[in-house]
Amino acid sequence: MDVSAAATAAPRPGEDALAALAALLRDDLEETNRLIVERMDSPVALIPQLASHLVAAGGKRLRPLLTLAAARLCGHAGRRHIGLAACVEFIHTATLLHDDVVDESALRRGRASANALFGNKPSVLVGDFLFARAFRLMVEDGSLEVLRILCDASATISEGEVLQLTIQNDLATDEATYLQVIEGKTAALFAAAAEVGAVVAGRPAAEQAALRAYGHNLGIAFQLVDDALDYAADQTALGKTVGDDFREGKLTLPVLLAHARGDAEERAFWQRTIERQEQTPEDLARAVALMVRHGAIDATIARAGDYAARALAALAPFPDGAVKRAMSDVVAFCVERAR
Amino acid sequence: MDVSAAATAAPRPGEDALAALAALLRDDLEETNRLIVERMDSPVALIPQLASHLVAAGGKRLRPLLTLAAARLCGHAGRRHIGLAACVEFIHTATLLHDDVVDESALRRGRASANALFGNKPSVLVGDFLFARAFRLMVEDGSLEVLRILCDASATISEGEVLQLTIQNDLATDEATYLQVIEGKTAALFAAAAEVGAVVAGRPAAEQAALRAYGHNLGIAFQLVDDALDYAADQTALGKTVGDDFREGKLTLPVLLAHARGDAEERAFWQRTIERQEQTPEDLARAVALMVRHGAIDATIARAGDYAARALAALAPFPDGAVKRAMSDVVAFCVERAR
Repeated sequence: MDVSAAATAAPRPGEDALAALAALLRDDLEETNRLIVERMDSPVALIPQLASHLVAAGGKRLRPLLTLAAARLCGHAGRRHIGLAACVEFIHTATLLHDDVVDESALRRGRASANALFGNKPSVLVGDFLFARAFRLMVEDGSLEVLRILCDASATISEGEVLQLTIQNDLATDEATYLQVIEGKTAALFAAAAEVGAVVAGRPAAEQAALRAYGHNLGIAFQLVDDALDYAADQTALGKTVGDDFREGKLTLPVLLAHARGDAEERAFWQRTIERQEQTPEDLARAVALMVRHGAIDATIARAGDYAARALAALAPFPDGAVKRAMSDVVAFCVERAR
Repeated sequence: MDVSAAATAAPRPGEDALAALAALLRDDLEETNRLIVERMDSPVALIPQLASHLVAAGGKRLRPLLTLAAARLCGHAGRRHIGLAACVEFIHTATLLHDDVVDESALRRGRASANALFGNKPSVLVGDFLFARAFRLMVEDGSLEVLRILCDASATISEGEVLQLTIQNDLATDEATYLQVIEGKTAALFAAAAEVGAVVAGRPAAEQAALRAYGHNLGIAFQLVDDALDYAADQTALGKTVGDDFREGKLTLPVLLAHARGDAEERAFWQRTIERQEQTPEDLARAVALMVRHGAIDATIARAGDYAARALAALAPFPDGAVKRAMSDVVAFCVERAR
């Protein structure tokens, strides 16, 4: 795609791809949205109030779309994928709420974060409520295999998030550890979301594994691009605060690469800004300039491209058709939004 | 029991009752403890490190003991109750971790809270990890009925906690709402912990309901006493900071009663200290004095006695024996620790 177009106007090709998938699955998605609204209700008014702040913010619904699409790709004719798509969105929303407590992000989906509006306390507790509701949806689905997959994903997500805290500010972090973090915090739910689509369709283990691989690699690509965008995005277009990761001293691939490729003076810069978190307002621009000089952002996006290719390859066993095409285009969305 | 003894020496009669139950179920409890340690492990070192801080602090294991005891009372001969007891403790520990974020408690089980030592971020995320592990244990148990019971308990816990935030500082709160809060934050898990003991034993619905009622009423009694102790406890003996609730402006029954029974000048005191949270170091002593004057603490403990009687009555259908006796004595523990 044209780089200049990305900087100026929406919708961009990648978002068209996601919109196309949503359009293809419109009825399923609308039913999922109704179920989400129904199940986040509670006699305790603050719960739907806070939860709807996030849900109504019109997230991309990328993760539940993966479940819906995977089920359709596998020829599932029933309705079980609806409940599980809602479940996946609840797990994601709960994670966002808890992540807001953690990261004190000023922006989330282009609106003030629930945390900033409502405070840490309700965010933690409403997140817990949504986790419980997510598991309730799985129980109603009744498949212990689905429960196992999504339980394990939940545990892996929190392991990834804790590992991320552990390596914060630590420039000695290696790429393998960084990958372990994003596998946990992002790819685990993408993988589970796609896998359960095959499970409800009663497809054989090989197809479950293929869809799991699709979700996993898509998730890694998605997060790599996200980490690149934190040093490159157009804040208005993405509803994301550029430089959040930098200000928190988060160890992402662009930082690891720029640090590894820098000279002694540059390394001193990274040690001061990331390890000791002594930052001046000008430091973010310097960080971006150093990344550009060493090709760290491009290299991160190229790495995302490798995982995107694996995600596409994982779809090979499935029959061609509109759903498979749309799922392939979503892979493009995840990478191209960075270009 | 002798009031003066309670103020001076441990163990007190109530704690003897809990120790007796633990002794009666020693093998089961040890197996549960081993499983807890095994399942809170993770390659991410901070997770077992933080979790064991709470678990190793030697909590009373009251909730898992309810599961173990209920299963034994129902004649369960298998090992399923072990996994579910561990699961119940994980849910409880996760709730404590998230509650520490919320309440900024300085003390928890007589040690610095995990939150104070490790910070809010890891507490939230390790809590999430333990929730996921709890659900994994249920999935391994394989009973959808158990999963439903504990999922619903988890949702009810967070609803209770959010409702508690909603009424914070609000002296217009009525007793029904206060009861709804403690039903959620405390009684729901007590009820579920006891109920699943009957479920794994394959007992009929009436016995499941009876054990649920036992746990529910015990939980209410336990929390009422806890709320009374916050204005009366010997801090060293209980590892609890007296006045935490007061400093947070938490609306508990002692406050509601003292406020309702106070004159205009006293109401102004409660409005300043609880609603506006303008407090001086002398205010806690004044609050306690007003409660004593109006019998608010005694009335709260008397109310706990009513629920304790219901808990005892719920055990009536079960055969007499050592387990039933010990479960009855635990009810006494929950109330007598306040005397």
